[in-house]
Amino acid sequence: MAKITFKFEDGSDVHFFASEGENLLDIARDANVAIDAPCSGNAACGKCRVKLLSGELDSKKTSHITREEYDEGWRLACTSKIIDDIEVLVPQSASAYKSRMKVADLSSADEVAIFEDAKKAIQEAGIELKNSLEIVEVSMAVPSLDDTMPDNERFVLALKKIVGNEVLITLPYHVIRILPDKLREGDFKLKALIRRATKTVFVYDLFTLNEKVTVGGLAIDIGTTTVSALIIDMFTGEVLAKASEGNGQIQFGADVINRIIESTKPGGKERLQDAVIKGTINPLVRQMCKSIGISTNSIYRMCVAGNTTMNHLLMGINADPIRKEPYIPAFYKTNSFYASDVNIDINPDAHIIVAPNIGSYVGGDITAGTLTSMIWNRPEFSLFIDLGTNGELVFGNSDFLMSCACSAGPAFEGGDISCGMRATDGAIEACVIDKETMEPTFEIIGEEGTKAVGLCGSGIIDLISELYTTGIINPKGKFVREGKRVVHDENGMGSYILVFAESAASVKNIEISEVDIDNFVRAKGAIFSAIRTMLTALDFTVDMIDDVYVAGGIGSGINMKNAVTIGMFPDIPLEKFHYIGNSSLSGAYSMLLSTQAERKTYEIARNMTYMELSTVPTYMDEFVACCFIPHTDSGLFPSVTLK
Amino acid sequence: MAKITFKFEDGSDVHFFASEGENLLDIARDANVAIDAPCSGNAACGKCRVKLLSGELDSKKTSHITREEYDEGWRLACTSKIIDDIEVLVPQSASAYKSRMKVADLSSADEVAIFEDAKKAIQEAGIELKNSLEIVEVSMAVPSLDDTMPDNERFVLALKKIVGNEVLITLPYHVIRILPDKLREGDFKLKALIRRATKTVFVYDLFTLNEKVTVGGLAIDIGTTTVSALIIDMFTGEVLAKASEGNGQIQFGADVINRIIESTKPGGKERLQDAVIKGTINPLVRQMCKSIGISTNSIYRMCVAGNTTMNHLLMGINADPIRKEPYIPAFYKTNSFYASDVNIDINPDAHIIVAPNIGSYVGGDITAGTLTSMIWNRPEFSLFIDLGTNGELVFGNSDFLMSCACSAGPAFEGGDISCGMRATDGAIEACVIDKETMEPTFEIIGEEGTKAVGLCGSGIIDLISELYTTGIINPKGKFVREGKRVVHDENGMGSYILVFAESAASVKNIEISEVDIDNFVRAKGAIFSAIRTMLTALDFTVDMIDDVYVAGGIGSGINMKNAVTIGMFPDIPLEKFHYIGNSSLSGAYSMLLSTQAERKTYEIARNMTYMELSTVPTYMDEFVACCFIPHTDSGLFPSVTLK
Repeated sequence: MAKITFKFEDGSDVHFFASEGENLLDIARDANVAIDAPCSGNAACGKCRVKLLSGELDSKKTSHITREEYDEGWRLACTSKIIDDIEVLVPQSASAYKSRMKVADLSSADEVAIFEDAKKAIQEAGIELKNSLEIVEVSMAVPSLDDTMPDNERFVLALKKIVGNEVLITLPYHVIRILPDKLREGDFKLKALIRRATKTVFVYDLFTLNEKVTVGGLAIDIGTTTVSALIIDMFTGEVLAKASEGNGQIQFGADVINRIIESTKPGGKERLQDAVIKGTINPLVRQMCKSIGISTNSIYRMCVAGNTTMNHLLMGINADPIRKEPYIPAFYKTNSFYASDVNIDINPDAHIIVAPNIGSYVGGDITAGTLTSMIWNRPEFSLFIDLGTNGELVFGNSDFLMSCACSAGPAFEGGDISCGMRATDGAIEACVIDKETMEPTFEIIGEEGTKAVGLCGSGIIDLISELYTTGIINPKGKFVREGKRVVHDENGMGSYILVFAESAASVKNIEISEVDIDNFVRAKGAIFSAIRTMLTALDFTVDMIDDVYVAGGIGSGINMKNAVTIGMFPDIPLEKFHYIGNSSLSGAYSMLLSTQAERKTYEIARNMTYMELSTVPTYMDEFVACCFIPHTDSGLFPSVTLK
Repeated sequence: MAKITFKFEDGSDVHFFASEGENLLDIARDANVAIDAPCSGNAACGKCRVKLLSGELDSKKTSHITREEYDEGWRLACTSKIIDDIEVLVPQSASAYKSRMKVADLSSADEVAIFEDAKKAIQEAGIELKNSLEIVEVSMAVPSLDDTMPDNERFVLALKKIVGNEVLITLPYHVIRILPDKLREGDFKLKALIRRATKTVFVYDLFTLNEKVTVGGLAIDIGTTTVSALIIDMFTGEVLAKASEGNGQIQFGADVINRIIESTKPGGKERLQDAVIKGTINPLVRQMCKSIGISTNSIYRMCVAGNTTMNHLLMGINADPIRKEPYIPAFYKTNSFYASDVNIDINPDAHIIVAPNIGSYVGGDITAGTLTSMIWNRPEFSLFIDLGTNGELVFGNSDFLMSCACSAGPAFEGGDISCGMRATDGAIEACVIDKETMEPTFEIIGEEGTKAVGLCGSGIIDLISELYTTGIINPKGKFVREGKRVVHDENGMGSYILVFAESAASVKNIEISEVDIDNFVRAKGAIFSAIRTMLTALDFTVDMIDDVYVAGGIGSGINMKNAVTIGMFPDIPLEKFHYIGNSSLSGAYSMLLSTQAERKTYEIARNMTYMELSTVPTYMDEFVACCFIPHTDSGLFPSVTLK
């Protein structure tokens, strides 16, 4: 038995015991030590770097660790096996990718603006902001020796006086259980929270007349990388709490394919489901409820928007058929799920509304996001782009909608990039490089004085754009200028050092390498080639696009001009671009609040055509042409010029 | 911290640590050492006798322990507090009352005879032996790139071809979860277990075509003292397994009132619910399933028959209003309960059918029992008597049914009787006393050579009857003859020793005292006075009774003649008496198997009038007159003579 000591940059440590031959990344998972492994531990991403402080590890050689770094003690956790007692340093950068929980401060109007906008937009489209939850007052005669009707019959009879005699009333177990106490506590006068449909009423909860009642709803966006959630007031739509956290499944891989593969291993479905529910959603919900002083039982409905794979893994349902021809999900749309089915820590009778998937790779995040983009409600032709781990596009107007998906990979959220991270505290979100000195200036997310930890998506766009327009890299992404910030390793691979280690909140330089640039260029190429392929199929050209709505976790700092410069977005007037934030979450918010908005989303999903890019013969050529900065055909980007 | 050692007669022991001042009975409960406490630990029943082997206990004096016994080390656990380390002997008799689990050997026709009879009887009454469960074969086209409908839609579409297009189909979570795997395993041809109603179909489970399928149902009788259960084949009605065990709630009191009081303490509802579900029902179900090699998930429906309090405590619902004027239960009838609500270890979607209560003290055990007695289907006037911890009576015919309940106490099942026990191995179930020698001969339940542990209800009836007809006791139950088997304690209280300790499977004599006789006489008096009061109210006399059906756990060994002799049953021709066993369980069996039988039980419950004896002014006088052997008015028992 070997003693493993994980040390952290803040001076704390964690001890754990392991056997000889055990994998260090597996041990970290067991010990609950967050070490990112977007590639699922296949030595592909180089994110799980740790520094051996004492003892020995049996580690494989990897291109992610230079000889010099190896001598300093750097190892990849995923390729290291235990020999004996060790101490390892887990740098902050090793868990920058899976972010910690963040409960938003709602006193800032920015935090709730997109939900206010979503509410206003759907209301303007004539959609009623109303759902089927309702509170009614129910009064009964107090029982006596001459009136010995049991509690449930007495209550149902009184409720029928309000909702109608012909209505079928369901008092579920959880309500009958509290019924005798509540009736007597309230002297046979109660408020009941009900779901009212034409011929049925479901009773969710009971309160005495003077009890303060919060009827909460949970809107949740389950991203492959990040889970974001809201608690709202189901009657007013007010956002009561907002929080986000990295998806706990990240330890099993950064993309849906790696997660699906992991889920097919013995116990895998349960592990993935636990990681997102027990490991992510339930702590988020509890934290949010605590912050506003309500019981988790006060959340009576939930709406989840996520991609098709996330929806399946959330429910513990085999997602393997999604990745194998003919790519069949278990469901697009279902109303069969309840909180108690999967032990989500809200009211057990809470119904889980799932924003509908429309294909294996266009999921509820996109249908909910399309609802929020309002592109379905305008005659103008709009392009909706969701920049997630998968990139999804929807193009159309009030007459038609076409969608497609491309595998951009996790680069937009900082994955696959050696110093990449999510758009959270410590992330460089914007930067400018002086053409002459090659010195950068940049902006870091967080309070004044926050040190840089890494680069988020918008920061990478800026950095690549600046490196290109200053001539430091060429259209192929190779370094062509020399300077103190441009270094080359023993294999000749170039890197640009944005922040030297001594100024960073990290033990190593914050830099971007040719491999990183290549990864990012492939991601942006996937997006632009998808746009071109879809428009071409519809006989459209980019100049016919009236508006572009950009959504996703890339961050509100995205510089549209730079995104055009690197050839990620079409070269059209910048005023046509609108960043709409997390439209998956704002769509879930609208579906939760309004039954008509929920139905509208089903209608949008039903009417949306899905185009499978991989079956379009020209797509691959298009993609290859896009893997340049900005494009092999520079005529497509007339506005792009060097500094 | 004191070390407590519980020693058992078989030589085993259990160690436990406790603090000074802790109650020994509470410690035994925590240590999972079975010590009966039918009086709920109030020093009233004297059942929790243990023998101090070493150390000291701070024990209160009690009339249940003689000075001599005290000197030998006997103490009541409920009145003893810890001072320091002790060793105590827990005799077998201290846990004879709460019986251990017994899985029946179904090769004996006797074990299933009452269910065969019940099936035949309801069939003869024109009731269809059919329930709503059904297995249908569902075939689908195998998906392809041109036919990418998701699994759930594909399945529902195929099922609608069988059940009709207009039918609303529910695929619950547990089914969607297995759907992708089952479809592919079965090559898109499956068997589905469904519940089919007019406009709805609920899908319970899926199987491949060549999978062997058992569709099990669980019938369960939750008695205050004993829980009995069956697993049946839902299609054929065959009894697949049968078992019984003492109700785990017994540690919280023998009767419903003590249990209700216990349940009102903090955490009490949960403790009582856990005791019967986790402590009794789930082990029974798992053991039965194991014995027949099926998964607990293969049980898709459950029917429970129990008294009103048992139904409430099973569901963890406040039962306190039942015992307080105006005596209002939370429900008589409900279809809101599912196995997953209360974690009963069967299929989580299994519906729990509850045999309907008709009042606070006439519950589902009686309505189910009435169904099985078939008295509702005959023109003759019949009396149905269920001898449980509560005694319940139903009188009537196909035109009317009247019921009442009396608190007989646990004496019929061996409670309140110092050497009483349930009708299980080691119980003396019958006895005869020679008038001259006063020597007894008796029969013991169990294999040849089983030693006597105590007396069950039928044995007590025989013993009191024999003591009376041989003149050993007088009509007041006092000992009036002398002999080596008749002893008197220091207070002059007489006892008859049926088995001397050296011949018994116990460390003390098996005997019956004047206090025991008095307790039993009050129990039989409660029954007979209830019969008289109800008949009088209806303007009937005992000679107008055509048939008497006796049910309950008193044991098939009940000697009707002796029951008449002691004045428990009316003095009518013996051929009119029929022992029908556990009619609550056979009623639950019928309700589970047949939807029409279930409905018939609701109809019986609706049409049954309840008579509250405590509001009849003459009942108390009647009861006092019945507390003699056989009765103060011996003219009511003309056939009773001394030997």
